[in-house]
Amino acid sequence: MKIAVLAGDGIGPEVTSAALCVLDALNLPDIELAQGDVGGLAYHRHGHPLPPETLELARSSDAILFGAVGDPTCDNLARDLRPEQAILGLRSALGLFANLRPAAGWPGLESLSPLRPEIASGIDLLVVRELTGDVYFGDKGERIGENCERVGWDAMAYGEGEVRRIAHVAFRAAGSRRGKVTSVDKANVLETSRIWRETVIEVAREYPEIALDHIYVDNAAMQMVREPSQFDVVLTGNLFGDILSDQASACVGSIGLLASASLGERQTDYGTFGLYEPIHGSAPDIAGQGRANPCAAILSLAMLLRHSLGMEAEAGRIEQAVGQALAKGVRGMDLGGNADTETMTKAVLSELL
Amino acid sequence: MKIAVLAGDGIGPEVTSAALCVLDALNLPDIELAQGDVGGLAYHRHGHPLPPETLELARSSDAILFGAVGDPTCDNLARDLRPEQAILGLRSALGLFANLRPAAGWPGLESLSPLRPEIASGIDLLVVRELTGDVYFGDKGERIGENCERVGWDAMAYGEGEVRRIAHVAFRAAGSRRGKVTSVDKANVLETSRIWRETVIEVAREYPEIALDHIYVDNAAMQMVREPSQFDVVLTGNLFGDILSDQASACVGSIGLLASASLGERQTDYGTFGLYEPIHGSAPDIAGQGRANPCAAILSLAMLLRHSLGMEAEAGRIEQAVGQALAKGVRGMDLGGNADTETMTKAVLSELL
Ligand SMILES: CC(C)[C@H](C(=O)O)[C@@H](O)C(=O)O
Ligand SMILES: CC(C)[C@H](C(=O)O)[C@@H](O)C(=O)O
Repeated sequence: MKIAVLAGDGIGPEVTSAALCVLDALNLPDIELAQGDVGGLAYHRHGHPLPPETLELARSSDAILFGAVGDPTCDNLARDLRPEQAILGLRSALGLFANLRPAAGWPGLESLSPLRPEIASGIDLLVVRELTGDVYFGDKGERIGENCERVGWDAMAYGEGEVRRIAHVAFRAAGSRRGKVTSVDKANVLETSRIWRETVIEVAREYPEIALDHIYVDNAAMQMVREPSQFDVVLTGNLFGDILSDQASACVGSIGLLASASLGERQTDYGTFGLYEPIHGSAPDIAGQGRANPCAAILSLAMLLRHSLGMEAEAGRIEQAVGQALAKGVRGMDLGGNADTETMTKAVLSELL
Repeated sequence: MKIAVLAGDGIGPEVTSAALCVLDALNLPDIELAQGDVGGLAYHRHGHPLPPETLELARSSDAILFGAVGDPTCDNLARDLRPEQAILGLRSALGLFANLRPAAGWPGLESLSPLRPEIASGIDLLVVRELTGDVYFGDKGERIGENCERVGWDAMAYGEGEVRRIAHVAFRAAGSRRGKVTSVDKANVLETSRIWRETVIEVAREYPEIALDHIYVDNAAMQMVREPSQFDVVLTGNLFGDILSDQASACVGSIGLLASASLGERQTDYGTFGLYEPIHGSAPDIAGQGRANPCAAILSLAMLLRHSLGMEAEAGRIEQAVGQALAKGVRGMDLGGNADTETMTKAVLSELL
């Protein structure tokens, strides 16, 4: 089993190392790790945020453990050389169409949420975001309009095939959760959303045991604050998913604890090919200081073991160890605690053993 | 001065009547009211949610007092006959490009917010949303793609002129508030956003006293929950503004108290031509029962007097009366109180006199 490790920029390397310590402690046989450069680091070393050798490495692996990209020294580069393009490029080149973003509080950590405790404690949802279509990857450009003004434009679109594929992921996920899918669109305005909604309804027929409802994106953003406990699986396109998944994370409050998976279609010998990353970014302000909370990276590793390597038991062990460390009151600095990266990692490791 | 009154569907007529009682109590000379049909009601009477005579009436007025549209009996109609098309049609036909959505809590009502009181009490922001461009009004349709699948598509675009016009509205508004504009875009992905951002930066040069920053829409959705007090004026396009303004309203909590203005370019003899509406919808479940909270409609009237009729003093009087009624503990049923529409309206009226 080969894991490509793309630690990237800012706090990426620190939190990824912590996750690798946890992997090491599991003592799994036959795991090969291969490091690759990505993001601002890769730009500085190779002139591109996603060099061909990194892409090749990723493609030839069973799973990718990703840190973070984002580097203020690249802010003035042309868009296609900026660090974020690495993650967009990986998604598109590797067909990572299914982004899974669980958002749930940990017992005892409700006080980290900006929401009232009685509202925050009910959050237990999974955003299933389509990741390779929509206005992200359509044609785009600049044209000259009336009065010689510049006009920026982007084509938004979804085809039935793309929607069907991601809808199946959502319905299957709901089957092992609370059995409810909420599909988010803007079908009162967008043709893209009309096809989206019609296709989701069609796929739902294959899952009679799952409840489906549809909600407009503006209402979804409202309900996510008002009463997030109503959501189980939230199924969305790329753009609305970008917004709502970040909003859901903020509602939970503890961004340093939230992980994500981006799955492709390819089946490996052990599971589904995918990329795993903490949802926090590169946090350049605290990079290199050993202060970052490694939990989200460690939990991303757990998702990797579950989805790509078929190791549900090991994934569960890691998640339990993180939960126990938190239950004992160890808190990263982002959560108002004083555990640095090493202390937090050791706390998780000691629960694991 | 002519006000077109388009009360619409559901609770629209009830709350609009309440607002007209307040207008009546102000005893203003020379105000002519003219009623028009709109929404599901107009569809049932005239076969179209925005009949030509309603549009003509709106066009010939100085301001429009709008109730709400939305009617479940129209759910199965083709999209261009559904009630929402009335509001989209008015915006586009009348050039109502500037949507102002203030979101601020009323002192003493922090407990209505789903956010912790210390976070909720800091909310005092104005969303300035562009309302006649973006993916809302671009070309759209369905095409046949690969493998004969159906593809829904929508063209997103902004030209410099459109951005400049709404940016000026935001900078001017910030000048009479706390002097800060936060422009929201997705410039790391969208060409539409790149033109947006460059144009906003250019307009900002004319307002050296206003602070400007830029934030990606996903981060904005996160910050709106985490720390909404950081926002003063939030400047956004049509689609992101739809989402963020509803999210901001939910953060305040008291949707029955929130009003909005949609301004055009045309100057009337007294101010700027515009349409004013509560942000709550038609709420068909409680329609006709006299239970709806009329405050948002009453506060929409205040915005109308301020922006379209140049009556700042009267607008302030209404806002103060609503504040005083609330301060005395009168609460609509949506706020957990027991004041029905009539009781709430009378409470406001008695503070006015
Ligand atoms: C960096 C950016 C392009 C990316 C996105 O918008 O998808 C990020 O916000 C995310 O959600 O992973
Ligand atoms: C009804 C709908 C088309 C409309 C919009 O999306 O603009 C509404 O949500 C709003 O914000 O006024």
